[in-house]
Amino acid sequence: MSTVGGEIFSVVRTDSQTLARCGILRTAHGIVHTPAFMPVGTQATIKGLLPHLVEGTGTEIILSNTYHLLLRPKPETVAALGGLHRFMGWHKPILTDSGGFQVFSLAQLTRIEERGAVFRSHLDGSLVELTPERAIEVQELLGSDIAMVLDHVVALPNERSVIEDAMERSLRWAERCQKAHQRKDQWLFGIVQGGLEPDLRLRCVEELVQMGFDGYAIGGLSVGEPPAEMYRILDVVAPSLPAERPRYLMGVGRPIDLLEAIARGVDLFDCVMPTRNGRNAMAFTEAGPLRMRNACHERDPRPMDPTCPCLACTFSRGYIRHLFMAREMLGPILVSLHNIAFYQRLLRQARAAIEAGSFGDFLEEKRATWSRTTMEDEDELENRSS
Amino acid sequence: MSTVGGEIFSVVRTDSQTLARCGILRTAHGIVHTPAFMPVGTQATIKGLLPHLVEGTGTEIILSNTYHLLLRPKPETVAALGGLHRFMGWHKPILTDSGGFQVFSLAQLTRIEERGAVFRSHLDGSLVELTPERAIEVQELLGSDIAMVLDHVVALPNERSVIEDAMERSLRWAERCQKAHQRKDQWLFGIVQGGLEPDLRLRCVEELVQMGFDGYAIGGLSVGEPPAEMYRILDVVAPSLPAERPRYLMGVGRPIDLLEAIARGVDLFDCVMPTRNGRNAMAFTEAGPLRMRNACHERDPRPMDPTCPCLACTFSRGYIRHLFMAREMLGPILVSLHNIAFYQRLLRQARAAIEAGSFGDFLEEKRATWSRTTMEDEDELENRSS
Repeated sequence: MSTVGGEIFSVVRTDSQTLARCGILRTAHGIVHTPAFMPVGTQATIKGLLPHLVEGTGTEIILSNTYHLLLRPKPETVAALGGLHRFMGWHKPILTDSGGFQVFSLAQLTRIEERGAVFRSHLDGSLVELTPERAIEVQELLGSDIAMVLDHVVALPNERSVIEDAMERSLRWAERCQKAHQRKDQWLFGIVQGGLEPDLRLRCVEELVQMGFDGYAIGGLSVGEPPAEMYRILDVVAPSLPAERPRYLMGVGRPIDLLEAIARGVDLFDCVMPTRNGRNAMAFTEAGPLRMRNACHERDPRPMDPTCPCLACTFSRGYIRHLFMAREMLGPILVSLHNIAFYQRLLRQARAAIEAGSFGDFLEEKRATWSRTTMEDEDELENRSS
Repeated sequence: MSTVGGEIFSVVRTDSQTLARCGILRTAHGIVHTPAFMPVGTQATIKGLLPHLVEGTGTEIILSNTYHLLLRPKPETVAALGGLHRFMGWHKPILTDSGGFQVFSLAQLTRIEERGAVFRSHLDGSLVELTPERAIEVQELLGSDIAMVLDHVVALPNERSVIEDAMERSLRWAERCQKAHQRKDQWLFGIVQGGLEPDLRLRCVEELVQMGFDGYAIGGLSVGEPPAEMYRILDVVAPSLPAERPRYLMGVGRPIDLLEAIARGVDLFDCVMPTRNGRNAMAFTEAGPLRMRNACHERDPRPMDPTCPCLACTFSRGYIRHLFMAREMLGPILVSLHNIAFYQRLLRQARAAIEAGSFGDFLEEKRATWSRTTMEDEDELENRSS
């Protein structure tokens, strides 16, 4: 276990209406107020945004991708240039995933062996091996504040035996990751697998907690199952995890999903939705999503969200529509920036509600507001590529 | 003639070694220290750069394009959204060109009639007419601080009779523009045409000065002729223009061209080179240009230009190469930003040299330095598209 100046996590306040909690996550690059949302900087950049703009949204931690950086520019290059923080000019905390999810979602011809995953690079077709030991080595070279164990992700729905096999392999890989991990300034999180099978999930939790990780992630969700199924699994898994460790729900999700998960005791999130939807001209607002290419915005002098304090909301909807119609980079930049600001403001509001002991009311109010909008359309947009 | 709070221009200092001069250009949105360089925001955005980043380079005035905004989003839309400054969030001075050059370089099937230019939009093929009166109307709708008359630009080299015809038409159009122009908070500049024929250029100057404009531009250069030819024309034209009015060399150019023109008494410049080359991964530095995709930069921890104070020069060459290899927006953003900062720093140095009465020495030094580098390669890069 790492020792970044003492304990990794303190719960500061627990909501009186739900299992939501406010906490402080300590890392070698500073603290993070939880519940927290991590914007995704896949290739060591949050697409189109200079680091100071991301920081201006209130972002305290970002995520970057082992899989992508392994292929390009290679972790040895990042290490030679002083590590990931210095490389990308982001001096606050960074979490790196292990590549398990991308091997499942992006790589071609993936072969999972007990030794590790063997796949063809989506860039040049070359054969690459990612073992648990290499996943840790890569993350140590990158120098992230939080590293993830390599896990074996499978599609849902799937046969129970396939899910069980993958979960058990993930446990054996987690143990090898723990053994390989050396950096004392980097936390290591285990990942709970087990699909939509509550008993498999609980067995996985038990074994991971036995091994003892700095934090615990819930993986293998948001891979196509209905939100209600995800919430059902969170109901079982989140409370079974140690209260004094941070809990991270990987790759989730829509604003309502974040709040539903927070109510179930989750502390940490990442998702490409604010930035990917932003590049596709979809803006999150308090009043529901806006498609910025729509003709109705042509002469609209209002900002995307009149209640939003972000830099992008100093511009009119008419201007942002023009940027998208003219295929100007500044369109994706401004809507990505706004969407990250929207997520961070939502998380600030969530933390305030927990502090006030009224997160349940806050969640109810958001459920009611957002069910009246077309917020669910995001899914369609999200899958439209980028 | 406009009256933006008194005189448009004051010469503050004249160099003792050359015809270079420092001045103050006054506009409705503030002053500009000359010699000045205007980055180009073709479609009401300097590609990829938020306005505060452009301002951070020391930029005091930018250029935007009547031709592009006429086609999209249309000037009436910009006016409905509060004018160009508010539309694009740039609250310092803006100069708009008249569209004459783009009709020549971009439009298809252009027919020049005495009434105006008729062309097919490069966007949707629709037929558009641009008369001198419409060019002024558009620029008044945009609300730029400096408007340009509509001119008839022809390719060089060309037959003398063609150049003479176009110059004479440009004069008649300049008169119609002057008659049509109404905004009192917008200066109007005449444009000197006449190709590489000194006597035609001088006749054009004489007639324009007779009409009396707020400032004078030298147009129809940097259209393929060798730099020495351009300097020869500047030698004739610049000193023949009224000393108390700003002189603007349109669409020029390379760093050395700016200095050569300043030495001949030019005050104002615009060029797409810093941004277009930036998007193509070419960075200007004191030591000559860098191609940021080159493998030699892979593990280079140095900034693009160790002497540069810009935000982009807080990142390593290795990181910027990675961004270009990974096709990340931040690559073009950072190199564009750096290149604008390079131009603005060069202009600050030029102004300081004029203040010190030693611009001739400064120019000599730069000629010597840059002739040792491959700075001339920029031309090839500039013409490579995007």
